[in-house]
Amino acid sequence: MAALNIALAMAQDVAERMFPAERLAALGPELVLLSPRPLVDFASPQAAAVLARTDALVTGWGCPPLTAQVLALAPNLRFVLHAAGSVRAHVGDAVWDRGIRVSTAAAANAIPVAEYTLAMILLANKKVLQLAAALKSTRNVVPLDELYPSMGNYGQRIGVVGASKIGRAVIGLLKPFAFDVVVFDPFLSGADAAELEVTAVGLDELLSTSDIVSLHAPDLPETRHLIDARGLSLLRPGATFINTSRGALVDQDALVRRIQRGDLYAVLDVTTPELLDPDHPFYDHPNVLLTPHVAGSLGVELARLADTALAEAGRAARGEELLYGLNENALGRTA
Amino acid sequence: MAALNIALAMAQDVAERMFPAERLAALGPELVLLSPRPLVDFASPQAAAVLARTDALVTGWGCPPLTAQVLALAPNLRFVLHAAGSVRAHVGDAVWDRGIRVSTAAAANAIPVAEYTLAMILLANKKVLQLAAALKSTRNVVPLDELYPSMGNYGQRIGVVGASKIGRAVIGLLKPFAFDVVVFDPFLSGADAAELEVTAVGLDELLSTSDIVSLHAPDLPETRHLIDARGLSLLRPGATFINTSRGALVDQDALVRRIQRGDLYAVLDVTTPELLDPDHPFYDHPNVLLTPHVAGSLGVELARLADTALAEAGRAARGEELLYGLNENALGRTA
Repeated sequence: MAALNIALAMAQDVAERMFPAERLAALGPELVLLSPRPLVDFASPQAAAVLARTDALVTGWGCPPLTAQVLALAPNLRFVLHAAGSVRAHVGDAVWDRGIRVSTAAAANAIPVAEYTLAMILLANKKVLQLAAALKSTRNVVPLDELYPSMGNYGQRIGVVGASKIGRAVIGLLKPFAFDVVVFDPFLSGADAAELEVTAVGLDELLSTSDIVSLHAPDLPETRHLIDARGLSLLRPGATFINTSRGALVDQDALVRRIQRGDLYAVLDVTTPELLDPDHPFYDHPNVLLTPHVAGSLGVELARLADTALAEAGRAARGEELLYGLNENALGRTA
Repeated sequence: MAALNIALAMAQDVAERMFPAERLAALGPELVLLSPRPLVDFASPQAAAVLARTDALVTGWGCPPLTAQVLALAPNLRFVLHAAGSVRAHVGDAVWDRGIRVSTAAAANAIPVAEYTLAMILLANKKVLQLAAALKSTRNVVPLDELYPSMGNYGQRIGVVGASKIGRAVIGLLKPFAFDVVVFDPFLSGADAAELEVTAVGLDELLSTSDIVSLHAPDLPETRHLIDARGLSLLRPGATFINTSRGALVDQDALVRRIQRGDLYAVLDVTTPELLDPDHPFYDHPNVLLTPHVAGSLGVELARLADTALAEAGRAARGEELLYGLNENALGRTA
């Protein structure tokens, strides 16, 4: 087995955080790192010298576009292995036309969002954070059954909007629990849903029958206000609405009005704008938990993205199939 | 297959909550409920008439003791199927001496505690609730990396104190996640630990190397202050201590002092006393999340206990092994 010559291509600070010396020192013998420093642009003579020998680029945030001119400098390049989600910023026609294999860490990137969602579902059904707040404010015995007679995790319907990578990761994590999971996705076939062991339903049915509604749809012009005033009016009294996707998917003014009615709970990791005005009602409403866009990969979770890309490089070196290979056709919708 | 004659024995309000008419109406043909009302004591003529024909008692909180005198009224009684955790209050020598089969819903009772623990672990490693509080108080961009550079769920060590039913349920729920799970239990053999796919360690090692320490030991004279001042001093800076077990397991004054040092987080569902004085520092310290003893089965989760006992009755009727059968020897330690 010939060793694979690899190089990093990403912003300097990204490389420092995601590929520290310890991680690079642990590479197997099948991978040869051509330079300890990342390629931050492809125009320098130093970059040209590295590219001339590179078999696989491990890319990250800030990787410049892989244009035809850049590829001309890299005659051996056969793999672009991205240590983050979307490859749109740096992978285009030139890469596909050369038949270069591309992979993404989007699946790894989905995991933290799914974990955040799972934790919030388990606490929301049990009203744990509301009960913690009641204890803190009253410093007295909290009348649990009086406040929330149907509290608890057993038999609730969880509505997953979007069978995206994240939506599927949420569905996977929900398997050990006693929930009835339904999913809405216009591109999901009945057979796909059966394979996921969930029931595909229409959006209105999902919204009107779920105890928890969690948004995992992509942010596209077609999905703007996917959850509009009418959809929000369908949500069951006592339901919890979770958004870890993008604020634009929701008619936020309508959500404010529904929250102020007092019979809906919301866990919002994203809003429009990202930072709300200081007097926005979401900050103080007892039914809202607002978090500062933290569900995605952060801190030590960046290491998972790095490990995912390096594991792909190992597979490439050993002549194995990439686990997270992309193809040009799939790119339009999923990356 | 002969049908099994069953009767409920528990407090009236427990029966109303756990065995409402809908649940009893859904019993399979193999189970015949002798009376829609529970036996709340065994001394009445009505109780005697029911006991005379009872094959299996489905018991719950408030079931009176099954003494030799009571058993003399129930010549056909072969099963006591408990829809709660411990059977100590109503099952004693008389039951064992008759060779009556006993089962418990303790495993089902463990599930909500494990779910609460899992949710808290996922949020604690990511510092989600701390970041929510920072957003709420500053209403400004939260400098995530500055505040918590090693935030996230990836590779943390989770220390489970006690391989109890709940401890094992926690270990089971942690399997899909990228954690290193260690367990301390003086009664756990290396082979048992291997079967659980975790590493058995000493208590000091667990305390000094875990990012999360979660208590799942029984409340016994021997476990009082199992986590004492010295043990608390071993906890890593930035670690999170979770107690869903009993306050008595921890030297609470020492925990207050360690919390006030500012480098430990705590999620406490139980304290000593159960309701703390209004000026107790746990209420307001930003590193403490205090919940009012809610991790166990509550609300709709009681239905799981009922379903578990009724499923055991179905197995008994069909001549199958009980899934959660107890024996007298095991009782001393686990029930």
